[in-house]
Amino acid sequence: MSEQAQINVMEQLVSLCKRRGFVYPASEIYGGLNGFWDYGPLGVLLKNNIRDSWWRSMVEVPPIGPDGHPVDMVGLDSAIIQNPKTWVASGHVGGFSDPMVDDRETKQRYRADHLVCAIAKVKRKNGDVQELGFLAVLDGDRAVNDFVKRADKLARKTGGGEIQPPERSELTLFTKLDPERQKQVWGPEATQAGTLTEPRAFNLMFQTYVGAIQDETSKAYLRPETAQGQFLNFKNIVDTTRVKIPFGVAQIGKSFRNEVTPRNFIFRSREFEQMEMEWFCHPDEARKWYDFWKEERMKWWKSLGVRDENLRFRDHDADELSHYSKMTVDIEYKYPFTAPDFGELEGIAHRGCYDLTQHQTHSGQKLDYFDQELQLKLKEQGASADEIKQKSRYIPNVIEPASGLTRAVLVVLCEAYRRDPNRQGSVEYLSIKPQFAPIKCGIFPLVNKEGMPEVSEKLYLDLRKHFTCEHDVKQSIGKRYARMDEIGTPFCVTIDGETMKDQTLTVRERDAMTQERVSLDKIKGYLLERLSAE
Amino acid sequence: MSEQAQINVMEQLVSLCKRRGFVYPASEIYGGLNGFWDYGPLGVLLKNNIRDSWWRSMVEVPPIGPDGHPVDMVGLDSAIIQNPKTWVASGHVGGFSDPMVDDRETKQRYRADHLVCAIAKVKRKNGDVQELGFLAVLDGDRAVNDFVKRADKLARKTGGGEIQPPERSELTLFTKLDPERQKQVWGPEATQAGTLTEPRAFNLMFQTYVGAIQDETSKAYLRPETAQGQFLNFKNIVDTTRVKIPFGVAQIGKSFRNEVTPRNFIFRSREFEQMEMEWFCHPDEARKWYDFWKEERMKWWKSLGVRDENLRFRDHDADELSHYSKMTVDIEYKYPFTAPDFGELEGIAHRGCYDLTQHQTHSGQKLDYFDQELQLKLKEQGASADEIKQKSRYIPNVIEPASGLTRAVLVVLCEAYRRDPNRQGSVEYLSIKPQFAPIKCGIFPLVNKEGMPEVSEKLYLDLRKHFTCEHDVKQSIGKRYARMDEIGTPFCVTIDGETMKDQTLTVRERDAMTQERVSLDKIKGYLLERLSAE
Repeated sequence: MSEQAQINVMEQLVSLCKRRGFVYPASEIYGGLNGFWDYGPLGVLLKNNIRDSWWRSMVEVPPIGPDGHPVDMVGLDSAIIQNPKTWVASGHVGGFSDPMVDDRETKQRYRADHLVCAIAKVKRKNGDVQELGFLAVLDGDRAVNDFVKRADKLARKTGGGEIQPPERSELTLFTKLDPERQKQVWGPEATQAGTLTEPRAFNLMFQTYVGAIQDETSKAYLRPETAQGQFLNFKNIVDTTRVKIPFGVAQIGKSFRNEVTPRNFIFRSREFEQMEMEWFCHPDEARKWYDFWKEERMKWWKSLGVRDENLRFRDHDADELSHYSKMTVDIEYKYPFTAPDFGELEGIAHRGCYDLTQHQTHSGQKLDYFDQELQLKLKEQGASADEIKQKSRYIPNVIEPASGLTRAVLVVLCEAYRRDPNRQGSVEYLSIKPQFAPIKCGIFPLVNKEGMPEVSEKLYLDLRKHFTCEHDVKQSIGKRYARMDEIGTPFCVTIDGETMKDQTLTVRERDAMTQERVSLDKIKGYLLERLSAE
Repeated sequence: MSEQAQINVMEQLVSLCKRRGFVYPASEIYGGLNGFWDYGPLGVLLKNNIRDSWWRSMVEVPPIGPDGHPVDMVGLDSAIIQNPKTWVASGHVGGFSDPMVDDRETKQRYRADHLVCAIAKVKRKNGDVQELGFLAVLDGDRAVNDFVKRADKLARKTGGGEIQPPERSELTLFTKLDPERQKQVWGPEATQAGTLTEPRAFNLMFQTYVGAIQDETSKAYLRPETAQGQFLNFKNIVDTTRVKIPFGVAQIGKSFRNEVTPRNFIFRSREFEQMEMEWFCHPDEARKWYDFWKEERMKWWKSLGVRDENLRFRDHDADELSHYSKMTVDIEYKYPFTAPDFGELEGIAHRGCYDLTQHQTHSGQKLDYFDQELQLKLKEQGASADEIKQKSRYIPNVIEPASGLTRAVLVVLCEAYRRDPNRQGSVEYLSIKPQFAPIKCGIFPLVNKEGMPEVSEKLYLDLRKHFTCEHDVKQSIGKRYARMDEIGTPFCVTIDGETMKDQTLTVRERDAMTQERVSLDKIKGYLLERLSAE
């Protein structure tokens, strides 16, 4: 796909999402609010389907572990606002920040680590090579392109000439420049040099105050991740349920990050929904479980109908690992806005014993684990009493598969989006895997008379008990099919004149647009079978 | 039940919830945070079951309307943080506040409208009647009691005597006193008069800032209700879906209120989850729909297993109606902490056209509705072109059934809590309706050997695909039954020596504690039938 086509896919998808009720800009009647989105009637159904699939794969039917037995897993739903000491211990108060620069001229704000710079050089008509300035552009695949365009514009103002395109490797990160050099840079939209401020750390947590008095003692934060809820409740869960190490705690819920530059539709928003699981295990077994969850998570993404060629693993290099992580692998997806590159989808991190140790230190509560089974095993192996005592009590290690529910919605939509110029009614349709489609079946009387709507309503009342249906009695049948294709409904059934005579109806399939006659008393079984197919 | 017994029920319930993993205080290892709770492994399952039941009754299988046809309903999931103009228009920025007083001596904070006062009088041994002071106590059923206790304590310090209990009607609301009189009051825990501050309005919305700059332009709020999301998206939903008036928009999600005095466990917390539906209809039909939803909502609460005698309607008097409401009825529940009185559970409000009108005025966007069907009907009735034009475009009225998901969790728990001194293992159990029980079936091998755990694990792997199960191989069978009773698991099946011979197992029912032998190949059908029973 060409670059332009990729950009268009996102524009078309965002437009379809708005037009058909998947995703609206939040408070749109008031001009919106940057980085916030509302999930409309179809978006919430799609999101719930993905949510339920993750929950089922984690909590209701967790996988079979490496030893052939099902793994232990429980769910959790912890508060968005926690005691603020939580975020001191987790490192978020001190360290969860992005470097930010403001342009004093244009009032634009940039992530300092998203700006790349180089000296622009122009070859004048007389052969002289002149420097035009130290220009900054936004990092990304189009950075060199953007740089040349910008330099060209500057050159034309001063007599023209030919721009010498820099090598990609010649573009330097703004944050890598020394402060004196930073002062000479032209901001991406500035008309002069030296208008960018020095980068300053900007904490991404939203702040608020709990209680009537607003001071340091009442300051609190909206959680930037759900995971700390699992760590805070580790001891409670060990003490009040029957789980034993190794076990997992899974949670789905909203998180908030005051992103400097929210972007790419619902890919990076300020309010979003996460699905995070913390897997507590013995330190010696952490690597085994890391590999296990890495594979399990990839399987899950494929089960959403995401094609193999659009997914890949990418191990983090040592220098990009978070301070708490021993190793991390990302599952990446080829988004329309990153293609042919891939972008972040889910991280599976080996967090070691960092979190529990931090919370133990900061809270003064013991968060170690007494491993009765290990104790027994060591006894059987004839270990000394001292060794048994020392080894059977430990702070567990944690493997964390962390993904975004709202990001999963985006991936399913990107993956399903299709254009077919030969389709009637609409050239667009969503080929969503039936299991995740917001509406499973459209039910239509061919015309809104002659007894047909009575039959179709009766069928609707029966089928909706088993799966989501929409009963639509108006518009031409072509328009109704086209709308269902656009919202990804895998099946439509139509009651027509024939139905009134022989009790059969038409079933139409979304992708192939094939039509079949099925008898009224068999249609439920017919659809249930196809909707549950893998 | 005696007053003491009622208090104990709450204490016992809170303790059970903590001990068995239903509800933990949020960030407990850091001393908690007043008004915030985490839902543990069982709490989140119970909450999800109630959530899904509400969603099903509203969005997936909405009820049959008064005309015999199913009503139109769609779902929504709007952002917690919206453009702040939303809350100006809704009236929350100006008016969503509680009157609050501080006690300068004790540093306690009270809702001014929750304090009642009277002059304490003591009859001394010599027959003299003396005034001890103007004492305040917390309002409620125990107010007179508390007042007498407090006065008695004061009297004893000054020579003793007999306290004359005031009539309930003699207790005056603190907020009804004139300012001079307020200065003479003894706060509920103060050791002297005059330490309470004047009441001041305290806005209940949590504030935060969106973006890097913290000033008036970036101030935003955490939503105090989900309902405004429906109003903000009214036009989007009409434009992008096939719904026509009358129709509803249903939403489940978190809301936040910075309560002055969070209390009664999860009844009034600062972070909570709501289930709100906004029903848009023609003004002339609003009353009909108000009555309709009132009955539907009561049916739903009963479907949770709540007993008739613990539920009632209470119409709001004219003077307690919110400024936007034409009429409101509460569904009330007899909580252990209100009994024999009832307390608020769900409000069904006739909001008129208040919200859409406000948002139309503040946003400048047209939020009226063009009613094509009404236009047609008027035409058929021979109305004039002017009349048709005027009548078929209007701002819809709204009927709103608004309830709390987290409050529903509390009600189901209160309703299910039982004590039976004759039960073995534990005197407590939760008689939760099977449909809502967090775990539907415990699966146990009688002993963890002799081939039994292999059989039970195989059964577990099959049954968990159909409903939530727990496989527990250790502890005495009595302890395992007792734990399942305490968490409300309706059925337990046990694999024992007999099973290995004749392929039958024991099914134990929670409430009656009856045991039955069922063959291994019939157990799935046996349980599925009982779990789906109404």
